[in-house]
Amino acid sequence: MAFLPAEIIKTKRNGGELTFNEINEFILGYAKGTIPDYQMSALLMATFFRGMTKEETLSLTKAMLHSGEVVDFSSVPGFKVDKHSTGGVGDKTSLILGPIVAAAGVPVPMISGRGLGHTGGTLDKLESIPGFNTQKSLTEFVNLVREHAICFIGQTKEICPADKKIYALRDVTATVESLPLICASIMSKKLAEGIDGLVLDVKFGSGAFMKTPALAEELALNLMAIAKGYGKKVTSLLTNMDQPLGRFAGNSLEVEECVAIMKNEKFIGAHGYDLYEDTRELSLRLSAHMLLLAGVGKNETESYKIAEDILTSGKAMAKFEELCSIHGGNLSALPKPKHSVVISSDKQGYVHGFHTESIGIAGILIKAGRAQTTDIIAPTAGIEFHVKVGDEVRNGDAIFTLHGDDKDLLNSAVPMLKSAINISLPKITKPSLILKVLS
Amino acid sequence: MAFLPAEIIKTKRNGGELTFNEINEFILGYAKGTIPDYQMSALLMATFFRGMTKEETLSLTKAMLHSGEVVDFSSVPGFKVDKHSTGGVGDKTSLILGPIVAAAGVPVPMISGRGLGHTGGTLDKLESIPGFNTQKSLTEFVNLVREHAICFIGQTKEICPADKKIYALRDVTATVESLPLICASIMSKKLAEGIDGLVLDVKFGSGAFMKTPALAEELALNLMAIAKGYGKKVTSLLTNMDQPLGRFAGNSLEVEECVAIMKNEKFIGAHGYDLYEDTRELSLRLSAHMLLLAGVGKNETESYKIAEDILTSGKAMAKFEELCSIHGGNLSALPKPKHSVVISSDKQGYVHGFHTESIGIAGILIKAGRAQTTDIIAPTAGIEFHVKVGDEVRNGDAIFTLHGDDKDLLNSAVPMLKSAINISLPKITKPSLILKVLS
Repeated sequence: MAFLPAEIIKTKRNGGELTFNEINEFILGYAKGTIPDYQMSALLMATFFRGMTKEETLSLTKAMLHSGEVVDFSSVPGFKVDKHSTGGVGDKTSLILGPIVAAAGVPVPMISGRGLGHTGGTLDKLESIPGFNTQKSLTEFVNLVREHAICFIGQTKEICPADKKIYALRDVTATVESLPLICASIMSKKLAEGIDGLVLDVKFGSGAFMKTPALAEELALNLMAIAKGYGKKVTSLLTNMDQPLGRFAGNSLEVEECVAIMKNEKFIGAHGYDLYEDTRELSLRLSAHMLLLAGVGKNETESYKIAEDILTSGKAMAKFEELCSIHGGNLSALPKPKHSVVISSDKQGYVHGFHTESIGIAGILIKAGRAQTTDIIAPTAGIEFHVKVGDEVRNGDAIFTLHGDDKDLLNSAVPMLKSAINISLPKITKPSLILKVLS
Repeated sequence: MAFLPAEIIKTKRNGGELTFNEINEFILGYAKGTIPDYQMSALLMATFFRGMTKEETLSLTKAMLHSGEVVDFSSVPGFKVDKHSTGGVGDKTSLILGPIVAAAGVPVPMISGRGLGHTGGTLDKLESIPGFNTQKSLTEFVNLVREHAICFIGQTKEICPADKKIYALRDVTATVESLPLICASIMSKKLAEGIDGLVLDVKFGSGAFMKTPALAEELALNLMAIAKGYGKKVTSLLTNMDQPLGRFAGNSLEVEECVAIMKNEKFIGAHGYDLYEDTRELSLRLSAHMLLLAGVGKNETESYKIAEDILTSGKAMAKFEELCSIHGGNLSALPKPKHSVVISSDKQGYVHGFHTESIGIAGILIKAGRAQTTDIIAPTAGIEFHVKVGDEVRNGDAIFTLHGDDKDLLNSAVPMLKSAINISLPKITKPSLILKVLS
């Protein structure tokens, strides 16, 4: 029987289950342009309402994965492992855990993204280092991972072209928020990396895509089911994004924070604790699980100890410097922001929470992030966080500092940022950074 | 705030209610091409799942209506009335009721469609008359209705261009079966005719779009709500489409049937009753309601009597001949099919029902109808019905005759047609043609 796209749409619309062949023909037809945008957007919206079975989600992942190339790492010995985060504000762990795991001898092939909306992108952070070039061919990528155990590149046109085209369409047709579509999009790209294992950092809270732990867990379980369906080892950490991670959000400022952590520096704030502590701890926990999947360490405690030793010994920093030289980046020339604007509290009480998404939007206002893919980022622009949930704040205490080169832009973001913190009277305990580990 | 199509789609997707301005900007933007097909198809699919409130459906109708011209009948005195049927097999009443109502002095401006799928189109039937031309400008249309009280044209590019574009998109994105989309599509076109009153023939049964009387009633009530929202007088008849209407389905054959009825001829079949009777009766009942809306007759009985007098006196036939001459049609040259194939029953019992949609599909096989808008119709091809529900049938009795010019095509449709009748043992009473009148 002839393949009729409208009939496939109707089947999904009516709640039926699509076969692998139906999904595959639709996806490949769309990738090569024989199925038009309007039929794909109708199928995406029908999928938003009807969902997909586990088998359909696997079929969709497979179809998108094989719309392009799968990186061939057969020439690189060892267990290749990567981490994927669902995105948050100040989420910079890749820059620390990549070097840690690579320094342990485990290959880390990282195909990363750019920031869009309120969440930042690893490539933008690295590219704030003058000269840092993430444009490499897949062959160079494989060679560099073989030689250095680490390399960061962006999504090339060979990797999941169908996903790239579908993702752009979802963005303009209100079909982003669909669990099977999200899962297939994430996993097709990760599977295309040719990895053996994956650690997922699935975030929940006001700055996360999934607002509650239950939703984050559902996403994690769905992502893990696909990874397992492909015979990959996988672990998920459900982590808190009810507040920004670490001291800074903003590209060069985040690099500065990571470098400080890898140099064993601390930054003790007004409340007597290290404001790098959460970034450091999450990076180590994620590193430990990556090492554990790769068989380095017999259990989480042992793997954590190995990761911590690499970090404190300076080996992670050495690997990061090696990484910069691979990519042509001059770390010593990392730019510093020219101006800053301190925002002080006009309330007394305890920090109850942040509207983390609003912080991300303030970041877009000062050009630390992008509203649209074509926006140009200001590398030094960013936000410094002086307090965390549970801290006591008095009237006049500094809560945020805006950094950047354009003072007018910084001032324009003050009202948005001021409204992004919730200070209230009753005392409140500090939340856990890592809620749950799923494997 | 800027108008963001993706936000409108999201609102509908999340079950929110759209304002008139939101719907209007979307529809007009789509009509002029600033909103692409893929955003419209996402909105259509979201509407399929979420439905529309009465206000939204009115807004959609209004937006589509004003995407083009509304015919200005201010120069034509009197109450303008039309009929719309939701479509069926052998549904030819327009060719009889138009002349009846026009002969009573009530203007009948008819903008009709072509057949698609299993249902026939009035324009195709008329165009089986050699020379009959339905392509006229809206100005000519108004002038002819003023002079002759009747004229038939097709949907011009000035009438609801947004609906035309959206309908084509719905057809290929599995978004046809949505009540608000159906209602707005039908009503925007009818309101564009500049009529004062409308009679709706809403069909139910195996050959209708709505399979049950309850669904047909829901459709009728929704259509009537829009008409009333525009201050139009409206009546709906819920009529039976569990079997084809009249003696023939097929373009020139249906014209032949209508002419016979307007010439007061009968065709007594093997079961002793007139096989034109249901076509005649439904045409008269619809005519009566059109006249009643126009104030011709004080009640249905009186209006029916007026319609019947016009029919039996030959005035309807004279008006039909006048109509043919307006449109350049040569009725005396109506072609006749060259071949016929009789299908006999191989069962004994009573006719319990028809798969009327299958009869329509048999019609497509012999080119009496279209599978796609670009298909060319064979004017003489058609199907003759020798029996109706409730008739007793013996082995060897003729049940259908296929007519047309291509004998091979006729033979190819025999199996489909044979399976389209249900003959069974228990005796069964004949169903009512008209179930309900709503006003």
